[in-house]
Amino acid sequence: MPKSTRTKCLIAKGVKKLLETVSFGEISVGEICKQCQISRNTFYYHFKDKFDVIHWIFYTEIKPILEESFSINHWEEGLLALCHYMQENRKFYVNILRFHGQNSFIECLMEFYENLAKKMLVESNPSRKFSQQELKWISRFYAYGMTGGVLDWAKSDMEKDPTPMVKMVSNLFSGELFAKAMVLEKAKEK
Amino acid sequence: MPKSTRTKCLIAKGVKKLLETVSFGEISVGEICKQCQISRNTFYYHFKDKFDVIHWIFYTEIKPILEESFSINHWEEGLLALCHYMQENRKFYVNILRFHGQNSFIECLMEFYENLAKKMLVESNPSRKFSQQELKWISRFYAYGMTGGVLDWAKSDMEKDPTPMVKMVSNLFSGELFAKAMVLEKAKEK
Repeated sequence: MPKSTRTKCLIAKGVKKLLETVSFGEISVGEICKQCQISRNTFYYHFKDKFDVIHWIFYTEIKPILEESFSINHWEEGLLALCHYMQENRKFYVNILRFHGQNSFIECLMEFYENLAKKMLVESNPSRKFSQQELKWISRFYAYGMTGGVLDWAKSDMEKDPTPMVKMVSNLFSGELFAKAMVLEKAKEK
Repeated sequence: MPKSTRTKCLIAKGVKKLLETVSFGEISVGEICKQCQISRNTFYYHFKDKFDVIHWIFYTEIKPILEESFSINHWEEGLLALCHYMQENRKFYVNILRFHGQNSFIECLMEFYENLAKKMLVESNPSRKFSQQELKWISRFYAYGMTGGVLDWAKSDMEKDPTPMVKMVSNLFSGELFAKAMVLEKAKEK
């Protein structure tokens, strides 16, 4: 692991430790530095601000879990794995998701599911030509549904078994994604 | 109009006026009072804070537009009317939607589309018995898609004609909502 990544991990670990007892809104960069025993210079060399740390944590922790299952047949496992991972780190995720205006989590999930939906649409309907704009609208529509479902589950309490929610939401995401192409084609013909 | 509503309208108008030139983050209650020529007491008698004003504006302006078309056959007109209304008030809506952490708009739309989806599901599939939890998951999944679509359109620039986006997104919302019931029934049988 390069030294820079090691320092980022150290800072991320410190932020997580702090978030076990205080809310994200109350944490300052000074406190993060104290917790990690680093200088402010070191902090600002690696991150823009405390939001940037959270952004980095999401992208380094969530993306690998999701990307492992970036395929039409296996992405449901990835979603379930994500929920279980979040449950294991519940204190951190509940704290950060409650923070008003924390959008990195949403962006990270949206990006993944938008790409997955695009891939599914193109691969499952190679003969149907959607414009780039249409592909984007459709993919984001479903990505919003997926992301919202996970967010609802996470914000409620995360104590519940995520399996029924994952099954339901993923049926909506995938089952419909294929059927939809036809519905839209029909609508276009009108 | 009762006096209290009149004062609320006056304050809302003042906030909108201010938002034509400054961003929402920069506005203070003091400035709102100055703009409206009212005392702080009057302000706090009617609203908790500046966020509360925005919340009230959304609910008093958006809900009537949407509610006029709360039916399976006419809600698309309502969505288009909403987009046109937002275009007419573009300065206000672009300013406020750019403000990080402004969730009232999302809540307002989510509430409406969640209820609409529930109604559509129950009315179009009276023989299919969904549990309350399932109804909630399905409805929110689609409500997230709808709300996200409007938000994307609004955040981009709002200059574009919303008609193609509305058509696409509403096809996804309604076309699928009916087909979905069957997909889910099949999934349950497995």
